[in-house]
Amino acid sequence: MDKMSSFSIHEGKPIRCKAALCRKAGEALVIEEIQVDPPQAYEVRIKIICTSLCHTDITFWKLDSGPFARFPRILGHESVGLVESIGEHVDGFKQGDVVLPVFHPFCEDCKDCKSSKSNWCAKFANDYISNTRRYGMASRFKDSTGEDIYHFLFVSSFSEYTVVDIAHLVKISPDIPVEKAALLSCGVSTGVGAAWKVANVEEGSNVAVFGLGAVGLAVAEGARVRGAAKIIGVDLNPDKFELGKKFGFTDFVNPTLCGEKKVSEVIKEMTGGGVDYSFECVGLASLLSEAFISTRTGSGKTVMLGMGNHAAPVSLGSFDLLSGRTICGSLFGGLKSKLDIPVLVDHYLKKELNLDSFITHELKFQEINKAFELLEEGKSLRCIIWMDK
Amino acid sequence: MDKMSSFSIHEGKPIRCKAALCRKAGEALVIEEIQVDPPQAYEVRIKIICTSLCHTDITFWKLDSGPFARFPRILGHESVGLVESIGEHVDGFKQGDVVLPVFHPFCEDCKDCKSSKSNWCAKFANDYISNTRRYGMASRFKDSTGEDIYHFLFVSSFSEYTVVDIAHLVKISPDIPVEKAALLSCGVSTGVGAAWKVANVEEGSNVAVFGLGAVGLAVAEGARVRGAAKIIGVDLNPDKFELGKKFGFTDFVNPTLCGEKKVSEVIKEMTGGGVDYSFECVGLASLLSEAFISTRTGSGKTVMLGMGNHAAPVSLGSFDLLSGRTICGSLFGGLKSKLDIPVLVDHYLKKELNLDSFITHELKFQEINKAFELLEEGKSLRCIIWMDK
Repeated sequence: MDKMSSFSIHEGKPIRCKAALCRKAGEALVIEEIQVDPPQAYEVRIKIICTSLCHTDITFWKLDSGPFARFPRILGHESVGLVESIGEHVDGFKQGDVVLPVFHPFCEDCKDCKSSKSNWCAKFANDYISNTRRYGMASRFKDSTGEDIYHFLFVSSFSEYTVVDIAHLVKISPDIPVEKAALLSCGVSTGVGAAWKVANVEEGSNVAVFGLGAVGLAVAEGARVRGAAKIIGVDLNPDKFELGKKFGFTDFVNPTLCGEKKVSEVIKEMTGGGVDYSFECVGLASLLSEAFISTRTGSGKTVMLGMGNHAAPVSLGSFDLLSGRTICGSLFGGLKSKLDIPVLVDHYLKKELNLDSFITHELKFQEINKAFELLEEGKSLRCIIWMDK
Repeated sequence: MDKMSSFSIHEGKPIRCKAALCRKAGEALVIEEIQVDPPQAYEVRIKIICTSLCHTDITFWKLDSGPFARFPRILGHESVGLVESIGEHVDGFKQGDVVLPVFHPFCEDCKDCKSSKSNWCAKFANDYISNTRRYGMASRFKDSTGEDIYHFLFVSSFSEYTVVDIAHLVKISPDIPVEKAALLSCGVSTGVGAAWKVANVEEGSNVAVFGLGAVGLAVAEGARVRGAAKIIGVDLNPDKFELGKKFGFTDFVNPTLCGEKKVSEVIKEMTGGGVDYSFECVGLASLLSEAFISTRTGSGKTVMLGMGNHAAPVSLGSFDLLSGRTICGSLFGGLKSKLDIPVLVDHYLKKELNLDSFITHELKFQEINKAFELLEEGKSLRCIIWMDK
């Protein structure tokens, strides 16, 4: 029986399959049999082919209080799958399509989705707490006892099947290997998009990137493709520097080796007055201030990407701002999923954009907890988890 | 004897003339006879025709400590004059030219002056303490006892004659009335430039301006010319609202009449989610935060223009930034004097840009202290002080 005909058996009915459940904050995921309901209107049920692990999964895995801490939950938001079935009012997707779920919505219809200046969908982007996009807290997942399981970021890819709203779905070319495409769901797109769409890095410019995780490396990769002159990496872990060279970094600064000098002073010396663009990819307010003053007076631009610890307010020197600097933030690198991800895929297929080097590990679905360990220990960039292997 | 031949008598020699001296912080200016030395290399000696008063003159007039508090001093930095004589290496200026001195330098030669992204001259813009541009603390002014008098912002226009470095000088068309041109030396250009060059306000966009002094009104005027839809003025003084209508304001918010609501909440309600551009023209860090969150999530841009009280750091909510907002600062509205002021003059001559309504008062040089009173009491926008009347 081929894939398509096996799909048809379940169309309109619940599917029983395996998912990695997070039952309690910080505890190892448990692979259990769950039930995945059929898609409702504007929804698509997807068979996940592979998924990868992002720091945001770890952040929410550990989160034990507040409105975003919800268990039992199916985490995971970087993945690629095949459309198994579609709900009502679904245009543009059909059974068998290769699709990429994306956490950040794009309704295509509101003022902001239609504007070239925004990727903050006025209709949907202000609600990150719901389980499903258009049906509030209703879940499409139940465990073996019939209890609802919470969705995560409208994707929940740590499951053989999931249900995703079309505002979160991109159809992609079957030419790109699925595991490379999966990287474009979040971290890598965020970094490349920040360099291309938010900062608009140009040829010959100087760039500093604070934090050399996957997002920071993707910023460098984006800056490299654009022809930046100096791409300076700032990280406490010197192991990142060798790795960084693969993504276009030309120079490195280890804050622990700067002596009396601030990192911003070192960067200003290296660049004759400061970089044109700086990117904060960690999520520390204090690091953002340092990234800000590392830029050139009169024209420097800082992009905030880090999601780590952003409860703290950002503090900037008034005169540092008044003297012609810019700071901006963006989610998902300023990208509009359905429009921009196919462009990134195209750059990959033309061998202009390096995605391959982000994949440091591959594991079977049963080994998913190992992926958490590797990322937490800083040993992996992206670990691909294959659902069928 | 015509003007030109009277100029020739003094060429290369000191000139004795009248100037309004500030001998002590906050004390009334005193008109005294002073000596103005001939221009050195790269300098021009100018006969001031008229000058106007800006809030920055008042700020420095009152400043009684720190490296910027220097007395006796000749204040004034908005003016128009005629070239009386030129020093060595002065190209592009000759005796009799109508010229506009500008506090913000433009050397035309450094990386930043050549870049379209910056107006922060790498060669000169970081030194605002010197008396003269290329000769450090040396003064071109002496009082009747032979004591040096401090310059102010490289202009010192409260004098019948002054000496200005060519990096601070723009030749302008004799077609524009001099008193209208004088406005373009600082405040009005700062506001219009912020709307046109820094924010790049486009047709149909919504704008909020915090603080309706000359700079804030000029922002509105710039936004009006660009075809902004709503231009919302925020000020504690309701008298400013009637005035504001002349400059394109369409709506007004008085913070004291907002009840429990924050100004940003009121603006969000008025605009269906926030303005596209907000401008802070007062110089209060707390007001800047409010201007920031008055903008639309995903694309809002805030421009900091106020110079008032910028010792305090700027504090911004991390998620407000991360969700796609931008904030930037600029001096002199992002303008490059020699390139952009002629463009503004041209817009005035084509009757596209309203400069006339900024002039609320005209006084003789002897009445200069009255101009300080009018501005401090909020009764004037711009008061033109005629040197020869």
